[in-house]
Amino acid sequence: MQPIAILTTGGTIDKVYYDALSKFSVGAPTLPRCFQEANINYEVSVREICRKDSLDMTDDDRARLRAAALARPESRILVTHGTDTMTKSAEALRDIPGKTIVFVGAMQPAHLRETDAPFNLGFATAAVQLLPPGVYIAMNGQVFPAGTVRKNREASRFEPA
Amino acid sequence: MQPIAILTTGGTIDKVYYDALSKFSVGAPTLPRCFQEANINYEVSVREICRKDSLDMTDDDRARLRAAALARPESRILVTHGTDTMTKSAEALRDIPGKTIVFVGAMQPAHLRETDAPFNLGFATAAVQLLPPGVYIAMNGQVFPAGTVRKNREASRFEPA
Amino acid sequence: MQPIAILTTGGTIDKVYYDALSKFSVGAPTLPRCFQEANINYEVSVREICRKDSLDMTDDDRARLRAAALARPESRILVTHGTDTMTKSAEALRDIPGKTIVFVGAMQPAHLRETDAPFNLGFATAAVQLLPPGVYIAMNGQVFPAGTVRKNREASRFEPA
Amino acid sequence: MQPIAILTTGGTIDKVYYDALSKFSVGAPTLPRCFQEANINYEVSVREICRKDSLDMTDDDRARLRAAALARPESRILVTHGTDTMTKSAEALRDIPGKTIVFVGAMQPAHLRETDAPFNLGFATAAVQLLPPGVYIAMNGQVFPAGTVRKNREASRFEPA
Repeated sequence: MQPIAILTTGGTIDKVYYDALSKFSVGAPTLPRCFQEANINYEVSVREICRKDSLDMTDDDRARLRAAALARPESRILVTHGTDTMTKSAEALRDIPGKTIVFVGAMQPAHLRETDAPFNLGFATAAVQLLPPGVYIAMNGQVFPAGTVRKNREASRFEPA
Repeated sequence: MQPIAILTTGGTIDKVYYDALSKFSVGAPTLPRCFQEANINYEVSVREICRKDSLDMTDDDRARLRAAALARPESRILVTHGTDTMTKSAEALRDIPGKTIVFVGAMQPAHLRETDAPFNLGFATAAVQLLPPGVYIAMNGQVFPAGTVRKNREASRFEPA
Repeated sequence: MQPIAILTTGGTIDKVYYDALSKFSVGAPTLPRCFQEANINYEVSVREICRKDSLDMTDDDRARLRAAALARPESRILVTHGTDTMTKSAEALRDIPGKTIVFVGAMQPAHLRETDAPFNLGFATAAVQLLPPGVYIAMNGQVFPAGTVRKNREASRFEPA
Repeated sequence: MQPIAILTTGGTIDKVYYDALSKFSVGAPTLPRCFQEANINYEVSVREICRKDSLDMTDDDRARLRAAALARPESRILVTHGTDTMTKSAEALRDIPGKTIVFVGAMQPAHLRETDAPFNLGFATAAVQLLPPGVYIAMNGQVFPAGTVRKNREASRFEPA
């Protein structure tokens, strides 16, 4: 199995409730707990790029994400990301050659009792291992090549653009 | 067992995540699901006063809560409420005679995987059955008479005022 | 607030799944995690009497439970217990004078996503603080004095005997 | 996207607690709820072969599973199965030509608060879409071709045989 690098940027998947502020904000990445529950036996490198609602991500954040994806020695890269601008960030990485880069997030926070987060992370973990080089969005049980997909906010679902 | 009236006002306990808005807001009361999971076999009346973060509750909301508590034929009344102004609303009901009124809420939404909501609702359900007439706050496994308690936001906990 | 002693005996509330055995068995007490989620700020002593399905509890187990309840300096005692023989164990403690002893358990393990465990523990935690001396079963959102209650297995519910 | 057929056989993933029997047994398939939480937008056919702990599966059960996999018009088939004899059932399907058949299960029931079930189902859902024809086991975030894998019960994990 080829090694996988994980880059986290925040998004709904990592939202937690801060009682002291009476609001939800992006917290620590939840992916490690999910990998632990799945009893995964191989090493993955996890690097935190930022901790933001994706509506707040800037061009600078995307530049740092791109630089990190380029710099990693691994050719298989999983990016956790908010769903609202996931397609935009995927675009920013499209010209990286020779790597399989898969974006994933969640419509409902991983900390909720009912959430799509662990299913989506599992789906993306298989996708990043099996897809040929390219940039993809893996959501709602489907793989979409970057540039061919949009988020339908009303339906809370990604679909062909 | 004497009948219990439940009045819901919203608060953190009922917060849900709306993906279409990329934010959490107060949703439908979660108490009925909790009572169903506890397989409770007696009738309770549930009336929704409002669906608000308690920081947004107005004097008018409190007047409607007070009127509802007075109007209910039951002498045992459970109020679900946001924690930030729970003590203020409890004050507004303090002069209602002959009724046991218990306020309860949660520091973490009932929809989270880790939450104090069901424990708190269970605690308050016993408290409203067993306490003498008066207005109380039942939080963090303790009963506090209204007027003797404050929320310590840093510690996410109620404590003697 | 008067101090509370907690005695744990096992039961469904503490059942976990052991993959190595492909079966569920009684695991470590779940009450401490529940108290932690409720952010309880007072000390409780927790003593483990046994870790058994209550159908497997022996007269000797009940004698040890009784001895522990007598020996504790606290006058308020919460007992977590399997539901199938909870009424029998409660009988065994009925002649202990001057103490409020509350039995509680769950129909669905605390480790399940849908469970009555935290609600029941919250309910019993208030009941043990507020009830006069005596032995009680606190289940399904109700307090039953020992000797007046039976489990209806078909309905998964306690009811007057 | 090519259509996917799902065949369910039971196993730990579907275990529920029956209070009336004071024990866990295999319940209804949990996969549909998981697909619903992931807001999956394509049709999958779900057919229940049996509802068994995989230690109780017979040669007849495996023959029916094999016949169902052969009979389905879909060339991509996902099988939910208990982990203890998953490798044996996979062997029984190895000579089916032209189909991608992926076995998946869980070490902890989907109904638990902490479970590998949704991650595993997500992983397998991507694997069945992306792998070439063959029979595979998709567990612990890895794809193992049938015949090359064993369950390590002590470690609760699949590993190369």
